Amino acid sequence: MSKGLFISLEGIDGSGKTTLIQHLNRVLEGYPLVNIREPGGTAISEKIREILLNVDNHQITPRTEAFLYAAARSQVVEQLIRPSLEQGKIVLADRYLDSTIAYQGYGRGVDLEFLHTLNYLCTAGTLPDATILLDLEPALGEARRHGKADRLEKEGREFQARVRQGYLQLARQEAERFHVIDASRAFDDVAHDAVEYLQKILVSRGWKPDAG
Amino acid sequence: MSKGLFISLEGIDGSGKTTLIQHLNRVLEGYPLVNIREPGGTAISEKIREILLNVDNHQITPRTEAFLYAAARSQVVEQLIRPSLEQGKIVLADRYLDSTIAYQGYGRGVDLEFLHTLNYLCTAGTLPDATILLDLEPALGEARRHGKADRLEKEGREFQARVRQGYLQLARQEAERFHVIDASRAFDDVAHDAVEYLQKILVSRGWKPDAG
Repeated sequence: MSKGLFISLEGIDGSGKTTLIQHLNRVLEGYPLVNIREPGGTAISEKIREILLNVDNHQITPRTEAFLYAAARSQVVEQLIRPSLEQGKIVLADRYLDSTIAYQGYGRGVDLEFLHTLNYLCTAGTLPDATILLDLEPALGEARRHGKADRLEKEGREFQARVRQGYLQLARQEAERFHVIDASRAFDDVAHDAVEYLQKILVSRGWKPDAG
Repeated sequence: MSKGLFISLEGIDGSGKTTLIQHLNRVLEGYPLVNIREPGGTAISEKIREILLNVDNHQITPRTEAFLYAAARSQVVEQLIRPSLEQGKIVLADRYLDSTIAYQGYGRGVDLEFLHTLNYLCTAGTLPDATILLDLEPALGEARRHGKADRLEKEGREFQARVRQGYLQLARQEAERFHVIDASRAFDDVAHDAVEYLQKILVSRGWKPDAG
């Protein structure tokens, strides 16, 4: 059995995941923390990420995209997540298997059964202990984003709305694992909610700040 | 129903697939022919091929490798193979789904059930009408190869021997689809055998040289 703790963060583009993760890294200083950014995280998955995020790759089919995410995830699971958990570390993942269902499934209409099978194959049983979903109206997410959008973020508002509905559906189906946070509020409130939730999990598992 | 014809060529490294395919292209001049080289064939699958064949990517896990092949194959199926077959063309594939089972499964010991599921997902029902297996003793294949070996070809003779046994096992399991050719003979004999087999299939399906 794994001694570590595996937390994934999910949400539509612009929901504030990256900022929250930076905050959690400060709050969790002293803990043995490992950050994972899907689809990157290893030398190989970074190369896969390059293919996925390159705006020139417009010919890529939704199913191929799903296989590439699965490849990157498989590598990150075997090379980083599983070893880290076995060493008793806290793994904080910026996106994981729920992104596949929300984006490729609900967003692009790829067959959900196909995607669940892929997720089953590429995670090989390494599932998050808890998942924080930053829930946000797409219009608000859009307003927050600035700078150059990559290929995935260039999708329209309707796409993001379908992704959001996918996330909320998953959160209903797996209410035990999901913690949904209203991300339309001020960042301090969002952060407070997330930290409180995380600390509850840590305490329930007997973690202490220097317990590496 | 597909009007085209889908032929895959399989065999260990050095079995003479490339030379045979060049020969078949000359023999089949006048037919509407499409050549597919796994794992490449499209802009995206060529990028995936680069990752797979790069000797620096020694950290890649066998399961990730399988997902990458599946991604490349999924793209080639949707972008090239299926449209070509629907247009009534002859698709000649240098490696297809049997390579996954032979190399990743028998060669590297990846779970066969996992690989068959991946193959099922990435081909989405587009299977070869016939498969030519160039069967060869690994020592002979090795002697034939020259120049710089890529990452995959750097595997040893024992690996190639397992791959060969995998191919022969598949050929026994699907005797209807497979045509096994003894590739240890002179090239003219191998080519004659392959052309005779192909022409039998073409005639049985009512093809004529200008029947594009």
